[in-house]
Amino acid sequence: MTTIETKLNECNFDAVASLAGAIVEEPTRGDTVWKASVTWDGGFRSTAKIRDFDPVHSDEPAGLGGTDTAPNPVEQLLGALGNCLAVGYAANLTAAGIEIHDLRIELEGDLDLHTFLGLNPDGNAGYSGIRATVHLDADADEETLAELHAQVTGTSPVGHTLQRPVPVAIALA
Amino acid sequence: MTTIETKLNECNFDAVASLAGAIVEEPTRGDTVWKASVTWDGGFRSTAKIRDFDPVHSDEPAGLGGTDTAPNPVEQLLGALGNCLAVGYAANLTAAGIEIHDLRIELEGDLDLHTFLGLNPDGNAGYSGIRATVHLDADADEETLAELHAQVTGTSPVGHTLQRPVPVAIALA
Repeated sequence: MTTIETKLNECNFDAVASLAGAIVEEPTRGDTVWKASVTWDGGFRSTAKIRDFDPVHSDEPAGLGGTDTAPNPVEQLLGALGNCLAVGYAANLTAAGIEIHDLRIELEGDLDLHTFLGLNPDGNAGYSGIRATVHLDADADEETLAELHAQVTGTSPVGHTLQRPVPVAIALA
Repeated sequence: MTTIETKLNECNFDAVASLAGAIVEEPTRGDTVWKASVTWDGGFRSTAKIRDFDPVHSDEPAGLGGTDTAPNPVEQLLGALGNCLAVGYAANLTAAGIEIHDLRIELEGDLDLHTFLGLNPDGNAGYSGIRATVHLDADADEETLAELHAQVTGTSPVGHTLQRPVPVAIALA
């Protein structure tokens, strides 16, 4: 006998429900630590190593002194936000029993180079604002999608990290 | 006649200096916009497309309902921070005429899953704290490296983005 199991949106919701259950039983199981290791490759090139996955390359555009072989760190940050929102929509729409046909997210961020280039040492070197436009084609009416959208944006790990001041401790070993 | 030009730390400092000069002349040239585009691939998988580079894949670990084929978004965020710091050290040490022999950055971040899983809707879904340990082998004494370290951490675009609250506007198209 062959059983073909089709999961809505290809989401393994059992795993999420089982993790949530375990955390309700034992709240400290919600405390997670995530890691990355970065190696400098010369110039403005470096690679990030995460678990056993292929290294993720990084570089700067030629205009910024790089060799333009890979996305730069601030672009990677936008990609991380978009990927995080995609997980959020997949999780929340699946939990609501709604099929997703298509989901695409365009992101952009504004950054003033003065501080990074040492021209305004006390200024903000980072993004002053980030915008994401979500193109979502799913089996639900506008009102339902707007509610789910609020849920996604209100519970996004990368979204919250960007919207809140996070203590970042950087130490020379 | 063949000219072989060896650049300190393989850094193209002329490009950086020329950009800085252009921004001093015309400050609005420091205003940059960076972009990424993310497409959902089913389940918790998605890909970020940045300029013409190969797509960057994203997934979640099996325990979180994913299929564990790529780093997840919060890991990508740590990688982006490490890559950004690597650019910062390369730029600042090169400007100071110091050769870098080796540079490696270990990063980790603490994240409580309660909010992402809907178990504490008003909580913080993001990182509560991020730590980076920098292993830097370079031709300079400890004091000089400590000064340059302060310069790097004080002018890091991704570091500042994480340490400050950034307005993030996410709209359903």
